[in-house]
Amino acid sequence: MKFYDCSTAPSPRRVRMFLAEKKLDMETVQIDLRNGEQFSDAFRAINPDCTVPVLELDDGTCLTEVFAICQYLEDEFPAHSMFGRNAIEAALATQWNIKIEQQGLGAIAESIRNYASGFKGRALTGPTDYEQIPALAERGRRRAAEFFRTLDAQLARHTFIAGEQFTIADITAMVFTDFAAWIKLELPDDAHNLRRWKTLVAERPSASV
Amino acid sequence: MKFYDCSTAPSPRRVRMFLAEKKLDMETVQIDLRNGEQFSDAFRAINPDCTVPVLELDDGTCLTEVFAICQYLEDEFPAHSMFGRNAIEAALATQWNIKIEQQGLGAIAESIRNYASGFKGRALTGPTDYEQIPALAERGRRRAAEFFRTLDAQLARHTFIAGEQFTIADITAMVFTDFAAWIKLELPDDAHNLRRWKTLVAERPSASV
Repeated sequence: MKFYDCSTAPSPRRVRMFLAEKKLDMETVQIDLRNGEQFSDAFRAINPDCTVPVLELDDGTCLTEVFAICQYLEDEFPAHSMFGRNAIEAALATQWNIKIEQQGLGAIAESIRNYASGFKGRALTGPTDYEQIPALAERGRRRAAEFFRTLDAQLARHTFIAGEQFTIADITAMVFTDFAAWIKLELPDDAHNLRRWKTLVAERPSASV
Repeated sequence: MKFYDCSTAPSPRRVRMFLAEKKLDMETVQIDLRNGEQFSDAFRAINPDCTVPVLELDDGTCLTEVFAICQYLEDEFPAHSMFGRNAIEAALATQWNIKIEQQGLGAIAESIRNYASGFKGRALTGPTDYEQIPALAERGRRRAAEFFRTLDAQLARHTFIAGEQFTIADITAMVFTDFAAWIKLELPDDAHNLRRWKTLVAERPSASV
């Protein structure tokens, strides 16, 4: 297996954290997103969506979505489960992972890509160019701030995002809260549950990858 | 278990098709989206995101994301697998399901909710009101049309979306291609592979639910 990474980007960091929690070592190739290596012919042959992370399997199959990569690694290496202890915990971990992707990470990406001059004409990832829509920059920021409240309320009831176990949802939430700094969005002072959780997760070795 | 459905809406149809393929019967409650029942106090207690489908489990847990519901049902009722025959096929089914959600279904929803007068001030699902952004109506339409080409190219290489097995990805793709009619977007005449696949899937009893 080979892992295509970019050490400065949030999406592949989710896989790096997952690998660290599972205690898996992996041959890793850095893709230079800043200089557009994701649009090279060589990388398009690996992932036509021109995004990282990618996990290339030994039979040549390339997995190009974070959740699909993590699901595969969980199936192949079940030790140190990132999907709870049973089908209900697994479904809740998956559900929160989806919510954090869409309402959290997606909102920040929407804000950055529709604002930063470096993404002019590149408002969406993928092979096709789309113009920036300035109204989305503000909407994304508002959505991300609102999602802090959703997570804080959930963490008032549970130790971790999806319950009492650390799961893939905590990894995605950790990357989300750090990614928020890219748009200078800080955890609200009164989000005590979210702050308690972040301190707890930050102590894990996986948080520093 | 109890399934909260809306017989006219595309998202719960994905679960209806999944249940039909798995040959599972389920107690079903219709939620009247047209008259705003999803915003009632009673339904907010079931799903604060105010969306269907929801699967309420016997212990009271409410699963509110299509993929999490399907993953749970697959875990509990493995017969008639909707995730292929092994970990690689499962990961590819999941990956295509994500791509179809984001690049297909999501694009159409973006187009409709930012155009139709009935969604004025309601451009996103969920408890918070967001204004329509007219530029997204056209962008969503363009993205959905482009995604027909992505699916057509994939189906030039495989019988079904994620390979040689019918999977959850085919369910999501079927709902996507039918949902496209809501914005009067038709399969391109020369999308021969996509048309061949659609005829094949339409013959399955699950396609009529």
